[in-house]
Amino acid sequence: MHVFYLPELFAEVISGFKIDGCWATRVNNRNGYKRMTQMNTRVLLARRPAEHLVAADFSIDPQPLRALKDGEFMLKNLYLSLDVGFRQWMNEGSGDNYLEPMPLGEPVQSIIMGKVVESLNESFPVGSLVMGRTAWEQYSIADGSDLMRIIEPDSEVELHEYLCSLGPSGMTAYFGIMDIGQPKKGELFVVNAAAGGIGCIAGQIAKAEGCSTVGIAGGAAKCSWLKDTLGYDQVIDYKSAEPLELQLKKVAPAGMDIVYDNVGGPMLGTMLGQLAENARVILCGAVSQYEREGGHEPVANMWELITKRARAEGFMFSDYEDRYPEAIGYITGLLKSGSLVSPVNWSEGIESSGQAFIDMLAGHNLGKCLIKL
Amino acid sequence: MHVFYLPELFAEVISGFKIDGCWATRVNNRNGYKRMTQMNTRVLLARRPAEHLVAADFSIDPQPLRALKDGEFMLKNLYLSLDVGFRQWMNEGSGDNYLEPMPLGEPVQSIIMGKVVESLNESFPVGSLVMGRTAWEQYSIADGSDLMRIIEPDSEVELHEYLCSLGPSGMTAYFGIMDIGQPKKGELFVVNAAAGGIGCIAGQIAKAEGCSTVGIAGGAAKCSWLKDTLGYDQVIDYKSAEPLELQLKKVAPAGMDIVYDNVGGPMLGTMLGQLAENARVILCGAVSQYEREGGHEPVANMWELITKRARAEGFMFSDYEDRYPEAIGYITGLLKSGSLVSPVNWSEGIESSGQAFIDMLAGHNLGKCLIKL
Repeated sequence: MHVFYLPELFAEVISGFKIDGCWATRVNNRNGYKRMTQMNTRVLLARRPAEHLVAADFSIDPQPLRALKDGEFMLKNLYLSLDVGFRQWMNEGSGDNYLEPMPLGEPVQSIIMGKVVESLNESFPVGSLVMGRTAWEQYSIADGSDLMRIIEPDSEVELHEYLCSLGPSGMTAYFGIMDIGQPKKGELFVVNAAAGGIGCIAGQIAKAEGCSTVGIAGGAAKCSWLKDTLGYDQVIDYKSAEPLELQLKKVAPAGMDIVYDNVGGPMLGTMLGQLAENARVILCGAVSQYEREGGHEPVANMWELITKRARAEGFMFSDYEDRYPEAIGYITGLLKSGSLVSPVNWSEGIESSGQAFIDMLAGHNLGKCLIKL
Repeated sequence: MHVFYLPELFAEVISGFKIDGCWATRVNNRNGYKRMTQMNTRVLLARRPAEHLVAADFSIDPQPLRALKDGEFMLKNLYLSLDVGFRQWMNEGSGDNYLEPMPLGEPVQSIIMGKVVESLNESFPVGSLVMGRTAWEQYSIADGSDLMRIIEPDSEVELHEYLCSLGPSGMTAYFGIMDIGQPKKGELFVVNAAAGGIGCIAGQIAKAEGCSTVGIAGGAAKCSWLKDTLGYDQVIDYKSAEPLELQLKKVAPAGMDIVYDNVGGPMLGTMLGQLAENARVILCGAVSQYEREGGHEPVANMWELITKRARAEGFMFSDYEDRYPEAIGYITGLLKSGSLVSPVNWSEGIESSGQAFIDMLAGHNLGKCLIKL
């Protein structure tokens, strides 16, 4: 007999199978024993999106939680991280070196932070705070794979930071800059999607490394925010009338030393056309391409990598697991000294996940998008 | 009064200005002094090529040589190196980080090897063997810039090798492989334009480093030659009916670890689609693109650099001047031990340069293209 131990949860126990918030009961007819059944609201990928994601691509699905198997543990999810990269895996045939396409009718995959509320896995005892890749759901059952790791939070740091500046976004910004960008004092660093979860951290790390920073974003309001709140030295509004190429020539007349690319496609091509000698191009993502039918567009100006003796390199934060402590130490230092603004675009409740993701793809967010459950 | 000292040249001195082989005379009317004038046959870029280069784009132009100025020296050119990269600079507006577009009506720029026959530059004394960048001409006047350097040939190595496996082609192959490719034993190395001047050396260096090597070339005869004469482990005929993508999947089912790209454009895109994790793409040239009107084509599959955590990097052999001795030592070792075949596609006489270059672009050569003067 399996009994839930969820001291931090409270629920009314009612008869039958009716859902009441997150709890339900059912009668085990064989022995007349009345057992509580934990309900778990999940957000499913209901169908393959047609180019642009819409709310109807998702459906809300409450399901009773199953019992754990040996080696598994259960997370009560506290925060869901929204990351544009996951958009790619919603497409048919999008399987790549990281993940298979998300299965239809299953919860949307996501990086989450949760607390272990039940465990049959000694490495993840009850009470542990865990980050990992599960899905848009209130509870996740995991076995320790899929990037699962226990977080030991610093009391001076807000918990959600472990999903933001100290989580995937921060790790991605840090290792991209340090390992591929290799910044040197006085170099010109340019990042696109600069108001996004990764971009807003990346610009500030590059600044901390002594670079002059340029943030590219869409719209005057966002650009002011980048400059005033995040401290970018210069900003480019790619939606303004002046072509990006000309704007880049103005802010980087001698070319860009480091490009942090989250956008891909035509914008990446334009940026490759404005490199300084020995430039490093950090290939982080391609948000402009995830919603395209028929796959990614080809990229212009690859030839410039030759004439500028430049380098373009892709990476994945999870390859650097051994060095997370280094990055976490560095970024925690910035946070504690007040030299890192780590803005969060909050949404509340599991049901908000779909629309929040859609809004993020449309660029409505300032900072990292998190769902608070 | 300036007097030529050219002991290794012999010429009939005739009156007037008539050209006789490489010599002419003219009467200096002011003092009635009869002076020998060295004639210099040059091959000019007569017009901007319309997409595909044709013989009429070049013209033969014999001119009397001018006297040296202070700091200059005169080379009697022995060999001209034909390098596909120079095709780019024949186009209008092709100026890049290396060179301006070649001026019309001037000799076609080229890497050459020559002997100093007269000198007003102490660093390049008469008798020195020199490699540098001048032009398609019998004699060059230089001042020590434009990659000029004195060669001290190894008596066991043929002189022309300093323009082939020990020259730009060899340096390009070596530093591309060692610094960008960073080969490890057992890795799969794939090079395109494999029968070209750089490709044929690159495959053998990768082999010497313990890689399994695949050469891509056009036509069954060339492919057999790659395998039988140059020792490639596998070959791909990109002109055969089977698409390149499928052929790559066959020879590299787990993806390619190192790609040495001389071709650019669509072929580079196809290759980026078949990378192994942590692959290195050596961006050396883009022969498929130099003859295109309207600039280079965009390249597909850049996204793969992210999912494969791969790197693409451009370079220029001349950036490695400090390390030429290392490369020359390494390649000389291979040559002396008989483990490097260094094939040359010879043409004779300055007038043959234009057609030889056209033939090379069409892929008619096996190995490095040299003009013997």
